[in-house]
Amino acid sequence: MNTRGRHLLVEYTGCTAQALNDLKRIEQLMNQAVRAAGATVVASVFQPFEPHGVSGVVVIEESHISIHTWPEHGYAAVDFYTCGQADPEIAHEFLAAGLGAAHAEVMYVDRGMGAEGRNLRLRSHRAEHCGADDHALIEQSAAPLAI
Amino acid sequence: MNTRGRHLLVEYTGCTAQALNDLKRIEQLMNQAVRAAGATVVASVFQPFEPHGVSGVVVIEESHISIHTWPEHGYAAVDFYTCGQADPEIAHEFLAAGLGAAHAEVMYVDRGMGAEGRNLRLRSHRAEHCGADDHALIEQSAAPLAI
Repeated sequence: MNTRGRHLLVEYTGCTAQALNDLKRIEQLMNQAVRAAGATVVASVFQPFEPHGVSGVVVIEESHISIHTWPEHGYAAVDFYTCGQADPEIAHEFLAAGLGAAHAEVMYVDRGMGAEGRNLRLRSHRAEHCGADDHALIEQSAAPLAI
Repeated sequence: MNTRGRHLLVEYTGCTAQALNDLKRIEQLMNQAVRAAGATVVASVFQPFEPHGVSGVVVIEESHISIHTWPEHGYAAVDFYTCGQADPEIAHEFLAAGLGAAHAEVMYVDRGMGAEGRNLRLRSHRAEHCGADDHALIEQSAAPLAI
């Protein structure tokens, strides 16, 4: 089986605190995001954290997606790692809307054994405004964005 | 709670096929790696894949570690994402030895809300030989390594 995958590391900020602390809703959102991306759920585990926050992972046939939330900061760290035809960008759009994120920062990494060269390749690093209806790209680079 | 975390994306190659297809041993290795890194297991899920391979995630108090293996390629894709004092480099050394990896390629990403600037920062990208007793750095850069 082909080892090639696409991994989005996403940092959501300006999220609704309530959304980030609602374990059941986050689990539902993550499962919906998997299906929207064309991936298949295998198993999942979601845990509340004290005093706030949620950690959860959905193992999918195409790898996994994970979330860790800090409601007190309006912040969530999410990974979308998919192999095959599933599209992690769709899962990202779905989560951004569901969490009410104001901004997203995304590192897009290609993974997996190639015919030659590296297995890990930073495809892009970008910052986005997240609106109710669309995402507006603020900045994007094929290299890491400057601090 | 502080949002700062360290995330290692690791690609192991030249691994023992048998090691990559042994679900129980991989689960044990991953749990041992978590403890060696000074982290605390919260929950875990491991699944076999047909015809080969294993996918597994350990949710830890400090975020998560995950693994996906392709025994037929001697390849495993692993993520070590830890917040707080846990050290993902120790978990990486533990896994490399346990999987019998010949090489590792590592992207080291700092995550979490800073006082200013980006949430995602590529700290380094490196390639290593993995021996039974030590790791020998082949190449390291603060920027993405060239293909």
